[in-house]
Amino acid sequence: MSSRFFTFSAVPRGPWRVLDQITVSGPSLPSASHIRVQAGPEAPAPSDWSLRGITSHERYVERAEREALAARQVGLGQPGHTCAALIPIRKNAAWWGLTQDERRRVLEEQSRHIRLGMNYLPQITRRLHHCRDLSDSEPFDFITWFEYAPQDAGRFDELVRELRQTPEWQYVEREIDIRLQAA
Amino acid sequence: MSSRFFTFSAVPRGPWRVLDQITVSGPSLPSASHIRVQAGPEAPAPSDWSLRGITSHERYVERAEREALAARQVGLGQPGHTCAALIPIRKNAAWWGLTQDERRRVLEEQSRHIRLGMNYLPQITRRLHHCRDLSDSEPFDFITWFEYAPQDAGRFDELVRELRQTPEWQYVEREIDIRLQAA
Repeated sequence: MSSRFFTFSAVPRGPWRVLDQITVSGPSLPSASHIRVQAGPEAPAPSDWSLRGITSHERYVERAEREALAARQVGLGQPGHTCAALIPIRKNAAWWGLTQDERRRVLEEQSRHIRLGMNYLPQITRRLHHCRDLSDSEPFDFITWFEYAPQDAGRFDELVRELRQTPEWQYVEREIDIRLQAA
Repeated sequence: MSSRFFTFSAVPRGPWRVLDQITVSGPSLPSASHIRVQAGPEAPAPSDWSLRGITSHERYVERAEREALAARQVGLGQPGHTCAALIPIRKNAAWWGLTQDERRRVLEEQSRHIRLGMNYLPQITRRLHHCRDLSDSEPFDFITWFEYAPQDAGRFDELVRELRQTPEWQYVEREIDIRLQAA
């Protein structure tokens, strides 16, 4: 069985070289030179810092959306996808105080988060990891890992710019944006 | 800040004495004589077995339901509530393969899970702990801890009997029911 658990570590040498690391909001993370992504529960290799998350069931997608997504999406590791982005975010207490119907309303009815991401499929692939329920004290709530080809880097910029303008992003209190290239 | 993380351990002596331990479905757990509930991330005391979970935001409750719940519910630790129940459950792959709207439909529109529990407030108090996203390999998905007065033990039986007859419970593949008394 493949693991649902992933660790992202800042290492001196590794498969993904950091091109750019921006603190979009909240406290920064120490600058990384390379990132290693490790699947499974084993302790990560020694590193400057590491973040961990677990893939889970979808929290907002409805049946019709899942079918539309399934028709377009492909997995990570596509040939030629030598660019990646690691974007950990943390949402504020107001977000976690909303009820399920209210979170869904902000995320999709107001912010079109699911639909926005769909517009960029299959060129931009992603895997979402949840952190919040791993322990009492995770620094982020979500870690998203994206992969795409160098010629789609501009489209990726457009996707994150669009998301950051949505009502949903008013609930984001910490966000780091790390862009990477296959080393 | 109070911890969201709890450990439930089978111990030879402790604050809650086991009156009855029934395997409702799936593999059993070794018989326990006492249960200790520990808040916080510290390693639990040596024990025969232990289960861990984390409280989290609500996954299904809508705004009107939360308000109705808030008007009736009280916290754990009420005076005279010397009875408790520890009920870990695991749901099957079919449940986790449903989309959010489908899970909500089974849980509330078909099974009246939220409404059922509300009928037993404030006499029967509860705390729900999530396990599934703590790691790759938790034995259960949820642990619910209930407290009530001895004179409400019959009503508690009624609540769990009603829940087990719902469509939602067709997705439960493992359930242990441990009844306890303050030692």
